[in-house]
Amino acid sequence: MFILNNNDPVPLYKQLYQQIRERVLSGQLVADARLPSVRVLANELAISRNTVDGAYQELFAEGYIYSRPHSGYYVSAHCHDATPFPPNLAPYRQKQLPELQQHFQYDFHPARLAPESFPAILWRKCFNSMLLEYRQVLSAYSDPQGEQELRSHIQRYLESSRGVLCQAEQIVICAGLQQSLDIVAHLLRTSHASVAVENPGYHLPRAVFRNHGYELVPVKVGPDGMDMTALKATSSTIAYVTPSHQLPLGYVMPVAQRLSLIDWAETGGRYILEDDYDSELRYQGKPVPSLQGLRPGGNIIYLGSFSKVLSPALRISYLVLPKGLLADYKRLFRDYFSTVPLPEQLTLAKFMSLGHWERHIRRMRTLYKKKHDALIACIESCFGSRAKITGQGAGLHVVVQFPGVALDEAGFIAKAGQHGIRLFPFSSFRVSGEPDPLQIMLGFGGMTIAEIEQGVELLSRIFHDRL
Amino acid sequence: MFILNNNDPVPLYKQLYQQIRERVLSGQLVADARLPSVRVLANELAISRNTVDGAYQELFAEGYIYSRPHSGYYVSAHCHDATPFPPNLAPYRQKQLPELQQHFQYDFHPARLAPESFPAILWRKCFNSMLLEYRQVLSAYSDPQGEQELRSHIQRYLESSRGVLCQAEQIVICAGLQQSLDIVAHLLRTSHASVAVENPGYHLPRAVFRNHGYELVPVKVGPDGMDMTALKATSSTIAYVTPSHQLPLGYVMPVAQRLSLIDWAETGGRYILEDDYDSELRYQGKPVPSLQGLRPGGNIIYLGSFSKVLSPALRISYLVLPKGLLADYKRLFRDYFSTVPLPEQLTLAKFMSLGHWERHIRRMRTLYKKKHDALIACIESCFGSRAKITGQGAGLHVVVQFPGVALDEAGFIAKAGQHGIRLFPFSSFRVSGEPDPLQIMLGFGGMTIAEIEQGVELLSRIFHDRL
Repeated sequence: MFILNNNDPVPLYKQLYQQIRERVLSGQLVADARLPSVRVLANELAISRNTVDGAYQELFAEGYIYSRPHSGYYVSAHCHDATPFPPNLAPYRQKQLPELQQHFQYDFHPARLAPESFPAILWRKCFNSMLLEYRQVLSAYSDPQGEQELRSHIQRYLESSRGVLCQAEQIVICAGLQQSLDIVAHLLRTSHASVAVENPGYHLPRAVFRNHGYELVPVKVGPDGMDMTALKATSSTIAYVTPSHQLPLGYVMPVAQRLSLIDWAETGGRYILEDDYDSELRYQGKPVPSLQGLRPGGNIIYLGSFSKVLSPALRISYLVLPKGLLADYKRLFRDYFSTVPLPEQLTLAKFMSLGHWERHIRRMRTLYKKKHDALIACIESCFGSRAKITGQGAGLHVVVQFPGVALDEAGFIAKAGQHGIRLFPFSSFRVSGEPDPLQIMLGFGGMTIAEIEQGVELLSRIFHDRL
Repeated sequence: MFILNNNDPVPLYKQLYQQIRERVLSGQLVADARLPSVRVLANELAISRNTVDGAYQELFAEGYIYSRPHSGYYVSAHCHDATPFPPNLAPYRQKQLPELQQHFQYDFHPARLAPESFPAILWRKCFNSMLLEYRQVLSAYSDPQGEQELRSHIQRYLESSRGVLCQAEQIVICAGLQQSLDIVAHLLRTSHASVAVENPGYHLPRAVFRNHGYELVPVKVGPDGMDMTALKATSSTIAYVTPSHQLPLGYVMPVAQRLSLIDWAETGGRYILEDDYDSELRYQGKPVPSLQGLRPGGNIIYLGSFSKVLSPALRISYLVLPKGLLADYKRLFRDYFSTVPLPEQLTLAKFMSLGHWERHIRRMRTLYKKKHDALIACIESCFGSRAKITGQGAGLHVVVQFPGVALDEAGFIAKAGQHGIRLFPFSSFRVSGEPDPLQIMLGFGGMTIAEIEQGVELLSRIFHDRL
């Protein structure tokens, strides 16, 4: 009846369990059929009673068989209409090959950081000492809003470096911008339905708010930031902006526009989402203070991130909520857990407490300033007056326009690709997604200065049709 | 006009910048007023021209002043109607005290793990070797769905230990159950509006689906799992279940009910959310295989977690999507980033690849079995036939009923608290939230055997009104 194999690494009781189970599921053993007694089957198969009993106990626990007192085990009804594990597991075991990624010698992707920039040795030290100190904490859940210690460090940093005025209780530690925005989308959905977004602007907020069912209203961006007249003409009650360094154009929103935006929010119960994503990286003068600091009690939700300066791999961001939203936040998310690992939070808190964070910012500013300056110099020497640069002086990319020249974006990117150059399409920042005939984006964070120089030189030869 | 202090740690240019800025914002300097030239102001204040120029450059970059060629700097309009940084920062600097948490000598909270259980030394080794190997990866974003290497390890583990049949491409690495459910809620919202949840059942899924605007329909749970007749009478098209170990009652859903549930899902385009949260911890026989394995191609979304066996602090969970949902997943989330830190993912992948995960499961099973057995023995010796235990043999808690005795839940918990015992209210599992007169929950994961014995002894004295 059953074939058991002593040489099989699968224990005998499990082999027996599996074979009975398959017969029940396939209908070979019909409902209410009586199974042989433990003693009889053990004798028949020349195995111990414990083995048979083990198999029966499993089948019983999972409901394949039932027992009648003083009578034995019977096959349960309704068990024979499902396919058991498919006998051939091959399609499930099929090894998936990682997507073939073209390697580019010159990668101008704007989200790349310098590969050597992560402070691995310091981070490891902080991690290891945290682990010694907090070992027992790793068996526990963290504060749903993020560890108090980390929030306090972020609060002090934001106050001294970004002019953001808040208390640690207003800060929520999140796993990256999209999760910060997810919380905002949940918080505002009952009384808000439409979000004004910068155009051109970052695609991620559009994706998050679209997934939450919000209407998205693109508003033109110019050197003064989001066009306030256009914004006021919309019925949007939320405005997502990047005032310190507009993504992608790099403009700084002047204070008059900031105040006008604050007024717009305050007079109508509206909200400003201030994304201060790479504000630490300013190469001329000091960082531009936050909009939040102009009106700390206002309807401004401040969004910050460790992705641009420390590491995008760590997935740590934060949200500063106005005090008026704290009660709603606690009501909606009181049952939630933090999404950011406790070891990471405590490691980062230690990293900040030892002053590494501020030193790291300064180091990154120096590192990227050199790359930035080399890129600007190269563009000027290769393109001269044909190129107009915007967004320089900050961040990890610049935008280059060629006045009077209409580039075929896809064609230019493809041709660059043939010469080992990766360009990120500017069109992905446009809400319509249409190709942009006027501008290209050059990210410099992940490149060496030599690569920047050679890459720009190659690009100018392609541009001037000499390749 | 301006008072600069050489002994102030704030640089002179910044002091000047701040003072001009405040006068612009307060309206003391009116729109279009001309600022003194750099030379004149430098002479007046006996400071270098560079200092004045630095301050002017900042004010210019932020839009407080504008320039006219060959004429100098002027105050921008519309800058004087916002409060600048409040002069008194005290309310923002106020140190927030951590919430006073009562310390309990006997903590029966069901979500506590053994504090000594986290494999800190092994984890640190894996982390450090990962950091050496992947240092440069830490400057990059991870695969949005989770690292391929980790997904492959989870796929193999699920196949061999949980009978879950899938490919790595169906797995999404998430930051805990709520984020897994968040993805599911987004995925199903266009065609589904109502979720059937177990009653009593875990509160977290209720919170997530409620926040996404779903209707929640509680369905009674008995020893056979969710009541299929009651489920069929609802208009819900999604059923959230914990078939391996019902939370909180601990029942195993028999195979007939599993098949019936699968049929229910398949005949109506409905979905089963199988939460297999602590299935590794089974102390009698082998773990009950997953529901997903009965119909790997079916409408079953499988939810797993590392929180119960490894660490809730790490925030790593996973989702197995049916192939039919992969296209929608990619469409909705193609712009999203992973929420789980790359260093954690790679550390866990290394931990699994070295066999530590399977060994750790075995170690935890042994550790918790001892605590479990001690708890059961104690309950039996202290309460005898007055207590009926359900949910034993698995997980980190049991439920105790006292047939014929109606306990005042809040009163009993309060009285236990006075004697240093923390009890988690069973009522939080009931959809209505009403106190439960019949049952109490005893989590044993975080307690020592001595604490379990003393705690149960104390409880029985309270129960029998001898305290």
